[in-house]
Amino acid sequence: MKSTAPSSGINRRVLLSTLALLPALSGPLLPDSAPAQTPGGLLQSWNEGPAKQAILDFVRATIDRSSPSYVSPEDRIAVFDQDGTLWVEHPMYTQVVYCLERVPAVVAKKPELRNVEPFKTVLSGNREAVAKLSMRDLEKILAATLTGMSVEEFNGEAKKWIETAKHARWNRPYTELVYQPMLEVLRYLRDNAYKTYIVTGGGQDFVRVYAEKVYGIPPEQVVGTAGGTKFGYARDGKPFLTKEAKLLLNDNNAGKAEGIQLMIGRRPYAAFGNSTGDRQMLEWTGAGSGARLKMLLLHDDAAREYAYGPAQGLPDSRVGTFTPALYGEAKKKDWKVISMKNDWRRVFAFEN
Amino acid sequence: MKSTAPSSGINRRVLLSTLALLPALSGPLLPDSAPAQTPGGLLQSWNEGPAKQAILDFVRATIDRSSPSYVSPEDRIAVFDQDGTLWVEHPMYTQVVYCLERVPAVVAKKPELRNVEPFKTVLSGNREAVAKLSMRDLEKILAATLTGMSVEEFNGEAKKWIETAKHARWNRPYTELVYQPMLEVLRYLRDNAYKTYIVTGGGQDFVRVYAEKVYGIPPEQVVGTAGGTKFGYARDGKPFLTKEAKLLLNDNNAGKAEGIQLMIGRRPYAAFGNSTGDRQMLEWTGAGSGARLKMLLLHDDAAREYAYGPAQGLPDSRVGTFTPALYGEAKKKDWKVISMKNDWRRVFAFEN
Repeated sequence: MKSTAPSSGINRRVLLSTLALLPALSGPLLPDSAPAQTPGGLLQSWNEGPAKQAILDFVRATIDRSSPSYVSPEDRIAVFDQDGTLWVEHPMYTQVVYCLERVPAVVAKKPELRNVEPFKTVLSGNREAVAKLSMRDLEKILAATLTGMSVEEFNGEAKKWIETAKHARWNRPYTELVYQPMLEVLRYLRDNAYKTYIVTGGGQDFVRVYAEKVYGIPPEQVVGTAGGTKFGYARDGKPFLTKEAKLLLNDNNAGKAEGIQLMIGRRPYAAFGNSTGDRQMLEWTGAGSGARLKMLLLHDDAAREYAYGPAQGLPDSRVGTFTPALYGEAKKKDWKVISMKNDWRRVFAFEN
Repeated sequence: MKSTAPSSGINRRVLLSTLALLPALSGPLLPDSAPAQTPGGLLQSWNEGPAKQAILDFVRATIDRSSPSYVSPEDRIAVFDQDGTLWVEHPMYTQVVYCLERVPAVVAKKPELRNVEPFKTVLSGNREAVAKLSMRDLEKILAATLTGMSVEEFNGEAKKWIETAKHARWNRPYTELVYQPMLEVLRYLRDNAYKTYIVTGGGQDFVRVYAEKVYGIPPEQVVGTAGGTKFGYARDGKPFLTKEAKLLLNDNNAGKAEGIQLMIGRRPYAAFGNSTGDRQMLEWTGAGSGARLKMLLLHDDAAREYAYGPAQGLPDSRVGTFTPALYGEAKKKDWKVISMKNDWRRVFAFEN
């Protein structure tokens, strides 16, 4: 392992980009196309290889004014799936864990649900039975735990939970189970004027609760599955918004391209995913002109994380899957596949 | 009229904010709370008075770290209605003019509409008859001219139109009929790290076509009435998005607060409107804690623009109205009313 230079408070990047704004100084010191540096080198948790190289090449090609693939800063949009792309999605989506763990509080408020399925099964604590719940049952649980309260109430509850809940395998908060190499990609893109978005099948409001702290991505740059809200007034005349069960955007599959149009309004230059749910997002990104980066993360590292999808030769029905067909499309269209095992020197920040 | 200092290329603001990033220099030269200056002074198209003062006071109170109303930069969100707030909405919303003028092209493609109402009336060119079309008829025209084509086709058509179409009264492009004082407010807020959004009852996709050029507001910061899109593949396998007639967000009245939640995900600190369609947006903004700026533009200047709403003592049924009830609510809640006649030294950039 290389030793890394210590980080120096108000960092080198801010200083460099500041200097770049001073016409009198920037010319000879900092060519316009020089990518911003992070201490310890770019993408330091990545091994040298085609995946890392593809990212570096893409950024250089799109920020160099003399490049035929130059992209003006205001058009630099990069989109990232979340579950399985930015953080662990196994054995269950974090948001689903949240919803299951909220059931007792919901039943306490609505005791009539106690003996009604699927709430009864969830309250029983029988893990095997919970794991067998149908999609329809899960939807009922999601509706009961994610809607019917004000936006502020939901934010407060979700924030409290995410600050304390832990993943059983690592006994660490879910928010520590983000992939360090991907945090470096987010940072590297932002350092080069890319606006980074999460485009997730997960709930938009849920991810917005922690995205700024965990990924440096503000709420308005989180696109996700979204329900409507309803404006109303409290008795004292104060307005509030209630989260409704009405689905506005199912941000999966084709919905990801549609969600990008709705919420961003322009085509991304870079897209990162890991499953068939991200397929149309990568296709939509790739159909634009010029240099477009399309990457899929392959979970092939059972030791440090998990191995599933093509790495096991079988589809996994619980989570969005990286099917053989998607793998084939990636190969055919020259989408870059990131091997967790081979391309990542480090998976989590806490490893070292 | 005061003489104004000449603008100086790469401007003073960039230089000042650059200096502010250099710890060694910024301390004594530039206190953290100093508002960025624009050449010729702040808000130079505004007359001195309570409206201008309210804007200056709000910004100072929210950027000064020692102020009890200090707002951290990432939370600085300001929202602006468009029609009648940022540009002229009389005698007809610009987007409605666009839709009416698109009718011949739509009928050329679908000749079966030629003798069907309301298309027949529009093709007749009878202005009085067109002015009498019902809301239901207008909706048919909007659906026929704004949906059913790909996102790219629509953007291309709308862009071409907005670059050439002119307002009859001034014989100038609609994009020159933006209010210079409001452009200065947008700029002043952005100079102080506010993210500026348009939140319009108009079509999101339509406004996105020109918002960056006209207001300096990128597509992803335009929230408007939005329809769905549908992802599909062309014969060559290339993906495309078709604009659908399905309404996802009616960004008027309560829909403006709901749209802010959907697209931004946090409560604004400043909101500007001019009609009952903006009421809930101002209420939602005002219900937050700390300093919140709520402003309504009153059209009381028939000489330089128009006088309607409370200025005429009668509601105007064609456009979103500034009703006596809204005027009463503004007075009661201390929302600031901007008098176009008294508060604006200049209305349009082309005046001088």
